[in-house]
Amino acid sequence: MRTIQTVKEMKAWSAQARRPLGLVPTMGCLHEGHMSLVRKCRSACRSSAVSVFVNPAQFGPSEDLNGYPRTLESDRKKLEDAGVDVLFLPGPGEIYPPGYKTYVNVEDITSRLCGKSRPQFFRGVATVVLKLFNIARPDLAFFGEKDWQQLETLRTMARDLDLDVTIESLPIVREADGLAMSSRNVYLSPEQRESALSLSRSLSAAREMFRQGERSAEKIRARIREIVEKQSARIDYVSVCDPRTFVEQEKIGEKALVALAVWVGTTRLIDNCLIERT
Amino acid sequence: MRTIQTVKEMKAWSAQARRPLGLVPTMGCLHEGHMSLVRKCRSACRSSAVSVFVNPAQFGPSEDLNGYPRTLESDRKKLEDAGVDVLFLPGPGEIYPPGYKTYVNVEDITSRLCGKSRPQFFRGVATVVLKLFNIARPDLAFFGEKDWQQLETLRTMARDLDLDVTIESLPIVREADGLAMSSRNVYLSPEQRESALSLSRSLSAAREMFRQGERSAEKIRARIREIVEKQSARIDYVSVCDPRTFVEQEKIGEKALVALAVWVGTTRLIDNCLIERT
Repeated sequence: MRTIQTVKEMKAWSAQARRPLGLVPTMGCLHEGHMSLVRKCRSACRSSAVSVFVNPAQFGPSEDLNGYPRTLESDRKKLEDAGVDVLFLPGPGEIYPPGYKTYVNVEDITSRLCGKSRPQFFRGVATVVLKLFNIARPDLAFFGEKDWQQLETLRTMARDLDLDVTIESLPIVREADGLAMSSRNVYLSPEQRESALSLSRSLSAAREMFRQGERSAEKIRARIREIVEKQSARIDYVSVCDPRTFVEQEKIGEKALVALAVWVGTTRLIDNCLIERT
Repeated sequence: MRTIQTVKEMKAWSAQARRPLGLVPTMGCLHEGHMSLVRKCRSACRSSAVSVFVNPAQFGPSEDLNGYPRTLESDRKKLEDAGVDVLFLPGPGEIYPPGYKTYVNVEDITSRLCGKSRPQFFRGVATVVLKLFNIARPDLAFFGEKDWQQLETLRTMARDLDLDVTIESLPIVREADGLAMSSRNVYLSPEQRESALSLSRSLSAAREMFRQGERSAEKIRARIREIVEKQSARIDYVSVCDPRTFVEQEKIGEKALVALAVWVGTTRLIDNCLIERT
């Protein structure tokens, strides 16, 4: 596996790489969620690149940019073992050189859910992903469904900006007890780890209510809140919404996205599931 | 000359066009300013495309989108005669399909000069030009220096977003009496046409003051205002600023951009010149 640290070298590699070329953009601290994307990328593409870049533009001023977990040597080993061709590992100054001024905004859908409590987040994500696409020129790019709103934002951006990148997504990967895998899970103490189970448990309860015929979005939201708060976790949002527009639903029709963000101590966790009539 | 109206067909043409491929983005109503860009594109590139698209995203709600002059048949003839390979002529729904949400913002430099009175303008320009670049995939793109701030915005965007497009610019082309060529000049009555000369005349006066040793930016701005107002034109802004950051200067150093925007009746005109120590 080759490690590339500059934009120029990455462009040169991409220009001669076998096609299709697949890219998995990450912030490192790789877990099984990431690795499912890497394996899918490897099997679907003839060349594969994984970027590891902790993107300052998607962190708010009071967020965990500096403390964000960095596990480069272990990440490198995992990617090497998975047979990835290139690890793209740019420094912050390579992506945002002095005088950097250009940002991409996907409007409307990014003002809801996570966009409310993280007003710069999607602008930062869309900008860095557009840059990574322009630098690596992938044919396919792979993202996890845990960040459902991010995925929808990037699909919208790719379509709106006429990008020649197909965006593929894979389901959430969970720990044995149901906790959605996240690089931020390392922040949790054993007690917090237990509280954090309230996210996946409340989603299971929501799914079960829907299966048994409940169609009131508010009743489902209320039940989720109840489960989460019983575990002494603090709710950022609980949403039962349209999976494309993120507009809150009242009466659930064919399907809905059930999504929540929760503070467990100082760690913000998200999870979601799609519920649909079968 | 081939006329292409869809994104899909334009991408297909670009994929097989001889390189380098040059693009001249325009809103039509072509004048000698545009044609100087077209000729330069033809001489510098092995394939050439000119886009004609009146971009709704760069017009404010009270601006002249609907009345913007459209002279398609004459434009087509000029481009054909100039030996252009492709006229890209998309409809608004091809560029901004229903549900369109993604916009590019070049921050900071676009909040000054024209950005103050036209707050959506540069966002609209940057977005459509990024789309045109993604659709036509040019190696070079050509813009006039009359829209100096636009040019600097697009250069910044191209650099920040790692685009593989070289942006070339050409000097302002003027009528015999000095009026900068603009598609909007057709709006002017004979009397207004005379008032409009105050723009280029005031710039000549500014250049002459600088040549004679004047280094006070405010004295130059004051002289420009005086000349323009004497011609009963209404000033939007008069600026003597840094040509890259657009920060107003006090004492002019090595060089400055002298730029102004003026209302002549209901028509807003702009002009500029660079002054520099020789």
